[in-house]
Formats: sequence, C-alpha cells, structure tokens
Amino acid sequence: MAHQVGIVGASGYGGVELLRLVDAHPALDVAVVAAHSQAGERVDTLFPNLPGPRVFDAIDAAQLAGLDLVFLATPHGPALELGADLARRGTPVVDLSAAFRLPVDGFARWYGEEHPAPELAPHADGSHGGERAAYGFPEHTRDVVRGARLVANPGCYPTAALTGLVPLAPLFVPGTVVIDAKSGTSGAGRAASDTLHFSHVHGDLVAYGAPGHRHTGEIEHWLAVLGGRDLGPVSFTPHLVPMARGLLATSYAGLADGVTADDVQDALASAYADEPFVAVLPPGTFPHTKALAGSNGVQVSAVVDERTRRVVVTAAEDNLGKGAAGQALQNANLLLGLDETTGLTAIGVYP
Amino acid sequence: MAHQVGIVGASGYGGVELLRLVDAHPALDVAVVAAHSQAGERVDTLFPNLPGPRVFDAIDAAQLAGLDLVFLATPHGPALELGADLARRGTPVVDLSAAFRLPVDGFARWYGEEHPAPELAPHADGSHGGERAAYGFPEHTRDVVRGARLVANPGCYPTAALTGLVPLAPLFVPGTVVIDAKSGTSGAGRAASDTLHFSHVHGDLVAYGAPGHRHTGEIEHWLAVLGGRDLGPVSFTPHLVPMARGLLATSYAGLADGVTADDVQDALASAYADEPFVAVLPPGTFPHTKALAGSNGVQVSAVVDERTRRVVVTAAEDNLGKGAAGQALQNANLLLGLDETTGLTAIGVYP
Amino acid sequence: MAHQVGIVGASGYGGVELLRLVDAHPALDVAVVAAHSQAGERVDTLFPNLPGPRVFDAIDAAQLAGLDLVFLATPHGPALELGADLARRGTPVVDLSAAFRLPVDGFARWYGEEHPAPELAPHADGSHGGERAAYGFPEHTRDVVRGARLVANPGCYPTAALTGLVPLAPLFVPGTVVIDAKSGTSGAGRAASDTLHFSHVHGDLVAYGAPGHRHTGEIEHWLAVLGGRDLGPVSFTPHLVPMARGLLATSYAGLADGVTADDVQDALASAYADEPFVAVLPPGTFPHTKALAGSNGVQVSAVVDERTRRVVVTAAEDNLGKGAAGQALQNANLLLGLDETTGLTAIGVYP
Amino acid sequence: MAHQVGIVGASGYGGVELLRLVDAHPALDVAVVAAHSQAGERVDTLFPNLPGPRVFDAIDAAQLAGLDLVFLATPHGPALELGADLARRGTPVVDLSAAFRLPVDGFARWYGEEHPAPELAPHADGSHGGERAAYGFPEHTRDVVRGARLVANPGCYPTAALTGLVPLAPLFVPGTVVIDAKSGTSGAGRAASDTLHFSHVHGDLVAYGAPGHRHTGEIEHWLAVLGGRDLGPVSFTPHLVPMARGLLATSYAGLADGVTADDVQDALASAYADEPFVAVLPPGTFPHTKALAGSNGVQVSAVVDERTRRVVVTAAEDNLGKGAAGQALQNANLLLGLDETTGLTAIGVYP
Repeated sequence: MAHQVGIVGASGYGGVELLRLVDAHPALDVAVVAAHSQAGERVDTLFPNLPGPRVFDAIDAAQLAGLDLVFLATPHGPALELGADLARRGTPVVDLSAAFRLPVDGFARWYGEEHPAPELAPHADGSHGGERAAYGFPEHTRDVVRGARLVANPGCYPTAALTGLVPLAPLFVPGTVVIDAKSGTSGAGRAASDTLHFSHVHGDLVAYGAPGHRHTGEIEHWLAVLGGRDLGPVSFTPHLVPMARGLLATSYAGLADGVTADDVQDALASAYADEPFVAVLPPGTFPHTKALAGSNGVQVSAVVDERTRRVVVTAAEDNLGKGAAGQALQNANLLLGLDETTGLTAIGVYP
Repeated sequence: MAHQVGIVGASGYGGVELLRLVDAHPALDVAVVAAHSQAGERVDTLFPNLPGPRVFDAIDAAQLAGLDLVFLATPHGPALELGADLARRGTPVVDLSAAFRLPVDGFARWYGEEHPAPELAPHADGSHGGERAAYGFPEHTRDVVRGARLVANPGCYPTAALTGLVPLAPLFVPGTVVIDAKSGTSGAGRAASDTLHFSHVHGDLVAYGAPGHRHTGEIEHWLAVLGGRDLGPVSFTPHLVPMARGLLATSYAGLADGVTADDVQDALASAYADEPFVAVLPPGTFPHTKALAGSNGVQVSAVVDERTRRVVVTAAEDNLGKGAAGQALQNANLLLGLDETTGLTAIGVYP
Repeated sequence: MAHQVGIVGASGYGGVELLRLVDAHPALDVAVVAAHSQAGERVDTLFPNLPGPRVFDAIDAAQLAGLDLVFLATPHGPALELGADLARRGTPVVDLSAAFRLPVDGFARWYGEEHPAPELAPHADGSHGGERAAYGFPEHTRDVVRGARLVANPGCYPTAALTGLVPLAPLFVPGTVVIDAKSGTSGAGRAASDTLHFSHVHGDLVAYGAPGHRHTGEIEHWLAVLGGRDLGPVSFTPHLVPMARGLLATSYAGLADGVTADDVQDALASAYADEPFVAVLPPGTFPHTKALAGSNGVQVSAVVDERTRRVVVTAAEDNLGKGAAGQALQNANLLLGLDETTGLTAIGVYP
Repeated sequence: MAHQVGIVGASGYGGVELLRLVDAHPALDVAVVAAHSQAGERVDTLFPNLPGPRVFDAIDAAQLAGLDLVFLATPHGPALELGADLARRGTPVVDLSAAFRLPVDGFARWYGEEHPAPELAPHADGSHGGERAAYGFPEHTRDVVRGARLVANPGCYPTAALTGLVPLAPLFVPGTVVIDAKSGTSGAGRAASDTLHFSHVHGDLVAYGAPGHRHTGEIEHWLAVLGGRDLGPVSFTPHLVPMARGLLATSYAGLADGVTADDVQDALASAYADEPFVAVLPPGTFPHTKALAGSNGVQVSAVVDERTRRVVVTAAEDNLGKGAAGQALQNANLLLGLDETTGLTAIGVYP
C-alpha cells in the first residue's frame, strides 16, 4: 500500500515539482497539497501541466502529523516552526528550506537569528545524531539520512557545487576556492517581481547577491565536513540566466603540488562510479544544463589548467530536480526504505 | 519478455525523443538505434541527456526486419523505401514521416510525385485495408491502427489542428476554416541552418511556408474523413516561435446557424471524455504549450464569438511528444497489444 | 532651441521607450519625466539602460501645461482626465492610451463607460475636427494629425494589423477578416504577475483575451474609416510569445472575384512607396519581428492562396516602437512641425 | 564630405553590425560591403533589418586600398594577409580579428603559427610604433590609436574583462586572477552548427574552450601592459548563454594588504570619470547585459568580499557593440580625426 505523503508550500516551484514527481511515483500517494495563501485555489490556475479540479489545502499541522512523510517546501521561517513540530511528533520530514541545514552557529551567522530549535539542527561534524537533522545529500550522507527523521534537503547551488568539489577537496590548496554559479529563474521563486518579469530577464544576464549569499555558508560548512578538511572561506557569486530551469556551478581551485589531471579525474570517477544520478563526463566535455531538465541527474566535469595550476570543475543540474524536489524525493525514498531511484528515472527533456 | 524495437533516423529530433521514451518504457527494448550519416558516432555527442558509450548503428533492413517493431523517423524519401520493404516482410512499422499519410492522389498532389508503393497508401476513406497504412491518430482511428501493420504517424501540425477540429466539423460552415499555427524550432528538424541559428531565432517570430505547406493537404484530407464531411480548402499558415518545443494551433471556423457555445463545448467534451491524453479546458481558459513539455498530452479549448459567429479553437501539444514520438509510441503500444498509455504517463515539465 | 516635452507614465514600457527616444532626439528636451507610484525613485532602478541620478517626477498638470508637448503613457483612465485637461489648456498632447482612439459610441461599447470628454473624442468618420482627437497613424492620417492638438496614438495590435489591411480593404469580401496576432511580453505592461514571470513565459505560447479584446473595436472602426468601407465584424485573437519585444499580425481575408496576386502586391506597394517607415516585402518572404527591434519600422508582406481565394497578410513591428513610442514620436514630430523622421532613423538591432 | 569606408567580412555578425552602425553614421559612407562566400547575394537575405536591394561585394584589395578606411571583420587568417597589404599601401585599417592584437611571441604561442607580418604586430610594451598595429582600446590606448594606421580591435571577452581589471591591477595579489565569462551566441559567429541550433541553446547553459581559449593570452598580455604590472597567468572560462547578444565578465582577484573597498571604487571611478562609454555602477548594483543591447556602452561594478579578501568585478557589454563593431567604429573615429562618439550615441534597447 502506498505511503501517504503531504507537500506543504505546494504552490511554490519546489513544491509543485514535488507534486509532479509524487503524482507519478508508484509507492507514494499525495494526501495533502497545502499552501498558505493559495489554499482553496485550483492547482491548475498556477500550473497548467496539472489540469483538473484539485485545489490547494490549508496547512493543518495535526493532519500532517498523521501522514507517513511530509515535504516542506516553504520558506525557512515557516519550516523552522512546522518542521520542529512534526519532528517532535515523530513524523518523517524532508525540508527543502534552509531551516535545518546548518549547525546552530552557522545558522546564526548566515541567517542572522538564533536557531529556534537548536536540538534539531545538525551536528557540526555531520554525524548521526538522534533527532538531529541529517543533511540530505545521499551521494555523501546516505547512511545518516537512513537513520534520520528530519532531513534538510541541500540548497540548489550547494548541491551542484558540492557534487563537483567534495571528492576533490583533498587535492586543493586551501583559500583558493572560487565558485561562479548561474541559475535559471525558477531558482528565484514564484513571487512576481520587476526583476523576474519576462521582459526584463529575456536576453539579459546579471550577477546578484555577492558577496554574502547565504548558500556560501552552506557550501563552506559542508565542503569542510564532507571533504574532510577546512578549505577556508569560499568566494561565491550567483547569476541569473535567461532560462526557466537549470543551474551550472563553475568552480575554480588551486591544486596542491604534484596533483595531476589524472588524479582529478580519478577522484571524481571513483566517487560516483556507482551513483545512478551523477555522470562524470570525460575531460574536455562540459555539462549542459538542459541535458538534465526535468530529471534528478547531475553532470560533472573537470579540466586542469597547468599554466595556472587550477582545476575548473563544472557541474550542471536541474535546480528544481537534483537541486530541490528530485533530491527531496531521493531522500524520502531513503527515509521510507524504498529503492533510492523510485520515481526518479526520468531522462532529461532535450532538446 | 520485452519487445525488441528499432529506431531508424535516431539522430533527428523525433528519433531521439523516441529513444528517450523507449529507454524508459517497461515493455520495450531498444535493439537498434540507426542513423544514416551519424552511424558510428556516439549518441551523447548530439544528445547530452543520454550520456554513455552508445553509438548510432548503420541502417540494415534485414536486421530491422527481424525486430518486433520498427519506428521510422527519417524523411519521407527513405521511409517510403524502407517502410514498404519492412511492411512487405511483415514487420510492424510506425512511420513518423509523411510517406504513408495520404491516399495516392493526395500524395501526388502535395508531394509532387507518384506514390512508389500505392498498395500501401491508406484508403481514401480511412477504412481498414489489409496491408494498407493506418493513419495513427488513436483518439479517432484506434481500431484501424489495432488491425494494421503499417502505421502512418500524423504530422505535428495536423495532430494539434485535428484534435480541435474533428469533433466540431459537423458544426461548421464549409469553406470557412482558417488555421494559424505556431511551432517551436525542434519542429523544423536538426539540420543546422542560418534560419535556425539561435542568434536569429532568439527574440524573433516569423511566418513561413504559406500557402502550400504540405501539412495543409494532410489536415484537409483527414478533417474530411474523420470529421465526416468535406469542409472545403483550408487556409494554413505556420509560424516559427522562439522556443525549442511546443506547438499551438489556433483555428477559426464559421458556425452553422443555431449552433451554440454549449454545443461546441459538449462536442469537444464528449469526444475526449475518456481519452487519457486529451484535456478539454473550460471555455475562457487557453492551453499553454509548456504545460505539455516532454509529455504525450494535448490541451484544447474553444470559445465562440457571437459577433462574428466564429469559433476559435486552440490546441497545444509538445510537437515532439503527441506531435511526433509520443504519439508514435502510443501507436506502437496499440500494434503490440499493450496498454495504450504504457511509457507515456510523464507529466509536462513546467515551469 | 529645443522643444520642452514631458512624458507622463514614464515608468511603464511605453513611457521609458519614449524617454530613450527623446533623450536622443536632436530637437526635443525632456523637461518632465513623471510617474505616479514611482515618483522620487531613480529611473535606473527600473531601467538600467539609462544609468544616472535622474528620478521620476510627480505628475503636476499645471507644470505639464506649460510645456511644448506632453506624451501620455498612462492607462486610459488617467489619460482621459489629464489629456482633456491639457487639451483644454491648449497644450499639444500625444496620448498612447486608448482614451481618445474611438468615437463616443465605440468607446462606450468597448470600454464599458460613457466617454467623459465626448467633445474631444474623434469624429466617427476620422475627419478633421477642431479640438477633437486625431487618430495618429501618420501613413494614413498625416494631414489630420498636422492640424490637431490632441493625438490618439494607435494601439500596438491595430498599428500592425491596419498597416497590412487598410490598403487592401477594397479588395476584400466583407465578413471574412480574421486576425491572428502575436506579441512579445512588453506589450502586456510592466506590472509583475504570475502570468508574466519569466519562469512561466519561457518556452511557452498561449492565446488570451479572445473574443472581445478591446483592440478588436479599434481595428474594426479604423479599418472601415481608413479602408473606405465597412468590412463587418473582425475576428481578433492575440497571443503571448516568449520574446520581450516584437509583434506580428497574421491577417486572413477572402478576396473579391477577379482580384489577383498582382493587385494585392500593387495595392501595398503603392500605398507605401514613399513611406520611410514601412517596407513592403516581395511576395514569398515574410517579415521578422526582430528585424524591427528598437526601430520605428513596420514590414509587411502578402501572399495569395488561390485554393482558398484568401490573402494572408503578415505585418511585423516592434510593439514599443511603431506600436507605441516610435509612432508617438512620429506624431509629435508632425505636431511640432519637425521632419517626421527626426530621431527615428535607428535601424533594428539584429541579430 | 563623408569618408568612404569599406567593410570586409560584412556577412558575419561583426561585419553586419558595422554596416548597421556606419549606415547611420553622419560622416561615413559605406562604399564597399564585401564578403567572401556571399558575394553577389542580397544583404537582406541574411539580415532582414537591412531591407533593400544591396548585395555583398566581392573582396578586391586594390579597390579597398583606395578608400579612406577599411574595416576587416573576417577571421584572422584572411585579415593577416589583407590587413598587411592595406597597411603597406597606407590605407587606414581597423581589424576586428585577432591578427594584430598580440606581439609576435604571444601570437606564436596562442595562435600556433609564426606571425607572417611581424613588422606590423604591436610592440610588446604597447608603445607607439610607426607602422605597428595599435591595440584599439580607446579608454586606455587612445593616443596610440590616434597615431596609428593599423588598429587591432580587441576581442569581445578582453574588452569586458580588461575594462574592469586594468584600473584595479595595482591593487591585486599576482597569481590570483580568475575570469568567468559568459556570452550570447552571436559571439560564436554566424556559421550554422549543431551547437548553435536554437533547439539546443534554448534553455541551456554550458562552458566551453577551457583552459586555453585564445582570449586568455590577449587578456594576460594587455592586463600586464595596461595595468602596469605582470599579474601572472589568468584563469579564463567562457560560457555560452541563451541570449543572442550580451557578454558579462565576472572577475575575481585577491586584494593586496590594506586595500579597501573605497580604494577599489575610487580606482574605477577615476579611471572612467570622463569616459562617455563606460558607466561605473555603485557598489552593490550589478550590470545587466541587456542594458547595453545595440549600444557601445560598458557597465562595470565591483564588490569587495572582506571574508575572502577578494574583489568581484562584473563588466557587461553588447559583444557586437563595445565588444566588436561599436569599438571598431570608435577607433575609426579616432583614426579619421572625428569626435570619438560620432554615430555611437545609441542607448541600449531595454527591455
């Protein structure tokens, strides 16, 4: 019998992509599709790919607590409250927001507030921790996720950047990491604004939020934990690209003496040899964001520049797929004891 | 055990979309992925959504004849030859080209040549016909397809236009049908050209091929056959729209005296009430092409303009989905006795 | 000495395009750049192509009345009031809204309210009329504009449609005109909305507002007046195309007996032989919207379909150029006695 | 009387943009519009923004030598030959290719061949040099250009990157410069290819050509010469962005001890205070590529990240404007003794 799941924040892009994925998932049933301001409104008014009479539900914590699993796709404010509530009641939660991604000190530093549920924030070393949130990056934290109740789904930028950087961290010169990232507009959320008006974005490219974008802290923290060493502060600059979906992280790092191009390729290839969602491309080829559209895949490649002794790592994903809803479903599969790839085998829609 | 199928012309957009769909189909195995000029080349050189070492095969008619079903996604020239060859050997074929869509006189008129295999061209009245090709438009020709060996998959424009017009044909004034259609660039094929260069298409909109686009003949013929009456010559103007996928047909027709908006809506609703791939929208809403991206769906709506006594019917599809590879797979499911929706349940990737 | 002009509604797309054009105009000075809700805000916050400290002014009717000419680029509500006020004070006005485009009965019918300044609405026959507004379509109403104080700038859709249809009206069968129009998103205005979010529009195409879009009434009225005969109600369906600028009107009409393709081409060619902003293309070529980007040009072509005895006329423009601000400046040049092309010679930015 | 100029390679994007600009230039006449393979073809077949009967001329060196100035917009191979020929005959030349941008050793290293006209290659120190080519970056080499006959127009990437980096070079830690650059598709040229097919580029983002893109050498060389010090090898990674025009260079560099954010802003502001084509934005705002579409402008901004002690400099341009044809015309104005801004005052077409 199918597991009954709820999606909260279903009127946002992460939420509705979860709805699209869970609707097609053979072992999950969507029992609740909740949204704050759109409660009572038809889903297809906003999302014509899901035609029919279904309406958004109101958010009811008691009702959600009775489900087999709840996805939170709200901003981190509501998620802090609802996530803590559900976690304390023992309901498995996958939270797509930033509410539980950082240890308490990191959270305070990057989000400017004390964590309201410090006993649920992850351990600083990423280890298993009873009720504490697991950072849900299955390729690197699968075991911690399996033992958790509350999973913090990584941010879209951190997922792409860390996929490329974590296996290579031992090869880097500390203090040299620069991440230049580019995202389609769905990463900026559904709220209408001048900045996201089609007329402004079409044919335009712009950087934003540098320095100090909050994903910087998430990348630094987990690169240190999962990469096994502190690489110092990281430069991170996001850009808004005129496409609806897709995210590319181009990362630069100095290579330690003696590290060769083969070392780099081997480190990536061996890290992901058995991973169904990560493709390591041959050196000299570069990942295309559109190759992953609508899928849960990531593609990574690395080239070594002997002149500068830097490696350039590019990693592409669908920011709503592996960068959000896809990975959330991958984590849910782990939490529920299902095969990790269930409902996630779609191939990117290209061209 | 899975059916062994071949895809010929797999390096074109229709072919590679078939490959994407059949790779994910639970009851079909891709045994041959053939392409003329790309034989020996890796598939992922052209299509990065399908990474891996797979290469395009050469086209070998004898090998293809041994398969359970062959998809032809070549231009109509090669399809005429290969389709006839395979049909004569008894191999089930779904042909995505225009080779077998029209009776011999229509073919001669619109394609400027005598049909080289007249005994395989469809009957002029669309009826069952032994070895003759069936026009593979399942919502309207399901039974003929089931009894056929050779299926002519409809063109992308005819699929959208006919979905909207066929159920309404009895309500029209003959001689009043105008179809203004718009397609994304993948409908124009993969061959690189000045016209299809990103720099030229981006931010641009242009009509082309009017009058006399060959899909005009296909629409006229099958509108008469499936709509049950001759509606006279049809005006058809296609446009190239700056998007990769998606097709919208906006059709206009005069309504016979006494026909009401309810009659129009009822005719569409009852025609498609049980059809899994066709959604009839409420009057006043309009289908979005992107709602169908990567799916086999069509969305249709109609509004009646009492001032002009015309109905405006809009129908949207993914030109590579229901407009090509999706419908081809739907036809293959019918030919092989599988459930018609197998492997075709993907929801459109939106936003 | 340069004429002092004001732009009201300068924070909208029509207004800011006027600002871009007038800033570069050799005989006009921008004295006032007024906007309702953005008053006090820097222009470059919204429009980074105009960097610098300039801020939007508040709207002050007395101040505007002292200028040599005022452009109104507000919605028609404020324009009705402000336009009437300025017209009564004798200040030349070019109004880009729909406030003064229709005679009083047409206005009441299509805008659902009595015209509050009926003595300023245009004569039903388009003739010279003292204080009455002139319909500012210089290629067809140049003399009326020259004698006017208040000019109603045509809508974006009417400009393109009428450019193609007016010279051909004598050749048509009444009751057969169908106009299928497509616009980039800037035509829908700057107000942020779900519908205009980049994530939704990218890769999408949709019809809207049919039947009953208000431009229908404007097209019907002026096609009758300028074409010299009543052609009956017109079907008009607009579509939203994924591009920021550009508008294409594809029009269909039945041809009267005996009318030939040469008659059609001659009618267009002779109508526009001396017009600097209208290019009539050879039959068989089709206008590209991007060819006009940033310019005041229109391109038109017509093909005759002998099978259906219909002509298909396609006309392309920049909806913010000839479809709005460009034509407004052309009208202003006429009002001020300047050469009509002053400040309007930019060539379309292509590719 | 207007100067007679020729454009060679006019069927490429750089060439046709020159044609668009020179057609509108008050002191230049286009006497020759030459193209190799398109000779005899109508210009408007490729470029519908320039309608009319004009055809591409054949390339005739003798004819060109008689003109007042020749623009070369061919690949660097033909430009080496033709540029040397014209330079020796004394005809002023602005070459948009890479033929004369690097001193002989740099040319040999990055272009893999001995320079065939070493006496015309620029001095390694960028100084005045008789017949030697001047690097035509007016904001930094204006005086050298004025004294030259042969001007090497900078590459599109170098123009953006150097605009941001040259004034800041004294503040950097050597060996820390990373340039992550992004360009629209027109930068990749007009030749049709799979890679540039609209269907592939739409909704896609990809890196290419790293490491070892030839613009790396040009940036390194001129950053050292114009910045006044050797900053060591530079990492440079270009990306292809789904837009037709526009280029953004995001550059990272470590700041020397004690350098403050004010120092950075002051260095940029004072370098460009009197430059008509360079806008230095306030810190915290970022340049939009579309703000420069169709113009000769560059916009630059810099933010300092105290955590990493790096500066992030973003510079935007139209790759066909300041990145190619616009700057070429700016150089031509200097060579011909005209005001540097003549014919270059167009404001970016936005939105």
